[in-house]
Amino acid sequence: MIPVITAFERSPDRGRGLARDMRVRWALEEVGQPYEVRLLSFPEMKQPAHLALHPFGQIPTWEEGDLVLFESGAIVLHVAQHHPGLLPDDPDARARAIMWMFAALGTVEPPIVDLSMTRLFERKEPRYARRVHAVETRTRQRLTELSARLGSAALLDGAFSGGDLLMVTVLLRLEGTGLLEEHPRIDAYVARGRERPAFRRAFDAQHAVFLDSLHAGGPPPAD
Amino acid sequence: MIPVITAFERSPDRGRGLARDMRVRWALEEVGQPYEVRLLSFPEMKQPAHLALHPFGQIPTWEEGDLVLFESGAIVLHVAQHHPGLLPDDPDARARAIMWMFAALGTVEPPIVDLSMTRLFERKEPRYARRVHAVETRTRQRLTELSARLGSAALLDGAFSGGDLLMVTVLLRLEGTGLLEEHPRIDAYVARGRERPAFRRAFDAQHAVFLDSLHAGGPPPAD
Repeated sequence: MIPVITAFERSPDRGRGLARDMRVRWALEEVGQPYEVRLLSFPEMKQPAHLALHPFGQIPTWEEGDLVLFESGAIVLHVAQHHPGLLPDDPDARARAIMWMFAALGTVEPPIVDLSMTRLFERKEPRYARRVHAVETRTRQRLTELSARLGSAALLDGAFSGGDLLMVTVLLRLEGTGLLEEHPRIDAYVARGRERPAFRRAFDAQHAVFLDSLHAGGPPPAD
Repeated sequence: MIPVITAFERSPDRGRGLARDMRVRWALEEVGQPYEVRLLSFPEMKQPAHLALHPFGQIPTWEEGDLVLFESGAIVLHVAQHHPGLLPDDPDARARAIMWMFAALGTVEPPIVDLSMTRLFERKEPRYARRVHAVETRTRQRLTELSARLGSAALLDGAFSGGDLLMVTVLLRLEGTGLLEEHPRIDAYVARGRERPAFRRAFDAQHAVFLDSLHAGGPPPAD
């Protein structure tokens, strides 16, 4: 059975691969599982048909027979549990790989998303520079801690896992902020993720959707 | 083997059960697994000995033989996968329970934590009221969506699961804000969680630690 995922008809990141369908596409490419994509406009995401799949009206979702899932982390874990390639067989190493999945989404991502949102929506606020500095400080702390744990290792815990996959997608959102470059080990870690053939296939697939949306016309997307 | 978890020697929430060790204690009480607790001061959490267990210098951690885990969500999932009571046997229902674990921590918790942090640290900032309103609006949106999905059901997806456990602990942080009371179904859902005997045992255990810390002297904790 070919699973169906949902993605933005026109991603607000202009095809930079920061939308959360990228995580699921990458996981599926890593394990060699074909998939189909149903594209949604922003209005469609808040309609009853989609809310029946995803109560928070977001992408991605996962449909596979009777099973419907939302939350990119849960979908990546579901893929990892059903195909070899994203979780080690050793029980302790497997628990640690899942731990890194939670760490990516629960501890590293929040300040990074805050930073994106602050830059997008608070530019006209009083003390904007001070607010950005505060969120950057929280982000830098996480990066410093993560870099210390990574040390000279290539990946978080031995072989590439769903933990690395989610961590790299979370860190990618910092591209262009200069923060990755302050932590050369993390910068190289992210680069190792991007160089994986499965990453490239997933990236190209989501980028093609964005290019198609431009050719299809409509108003230009917000930057 | 009795697992060892870490917790605050003196919780900044003054024993209200909002620290993340509560989630792990509750999960262990639900499945009837005894555990030991090692208490840490704030300085100890940032020392090399603890950073070797938890790279981000937080609580809780999990030590069980050679296995060391951090991230409360990952620890609760580990407990749920090794003991009956927190995940259904049916594969699809099991995937959905894990999905709700990720949803609690990845989608519902972030605006709630933002609201706590805004109230704690930005009270003296210009436009404080406006900032609180903005974060409350994001929180209300999540509560409205969650309430719509919950409908008249007692729990998120059939039997009580690790998804309910994490969701209730996330929502508990809203006590005293008035936001829970705006959503009677969610308010009742949280109350159902709090009424579980395992919740009460976990709550009492963490509360006793706080009371002990008061008797042990030292400066009074911040409110």
